[in-house]
Amino acid sequence: MSQSTYAVTGMTCQHCVASVTEEISEIDGVSDVVVDLPTGAVQVTSDVPIEASRILAAVTEAGYQLAE
Amino acid sequence: MSQSTYAVTGMTCQHCVASVTEEISEIDGVSDVVVDLPTGAVQVTSDVPIEASRILAAVTEAGYQLAE
Repeated sequence: MSQSTYAVTGMTCQHCVASVTEEISEIDGVSDVVVDLPTGAVQVTSDVPIEASRILAAVTEAGYQLAE
Repeated sequence: MSQSTYAVTGMTCQHCVASVTEEISEIDGVSDVVVDLPTGAVQVTSDVPIEASRILAAVTEAGYQLAE
């Protein structure tokens, strides 16, 4: 099992949280996504390590950004 | 035709705008809803005047508040 945390910017409400959670959850192998709205921390749990580029693509698709 | 503007607080993003628009649009007689996110102004156009209590109920259902 693999667990990584990403910093996502631009989320302002629970709808935003739901959008990011949904997009990341659609990645093959992802078993859990936990978002902390105040900090923008997104914890991704997966069966195998997920390439960061796939997380980036999902976050972008949802309409948000990864922090630098 | 009737047009009224309400001040809604708590909307932070376009998802919020969509939720409020959707709930108010479901009220019988409402033909158009225009939301200005920066100010929270919600302009409701309807065939007949809509009771404010129904707008309040819709805004509350969406998860937001009418400003005092």
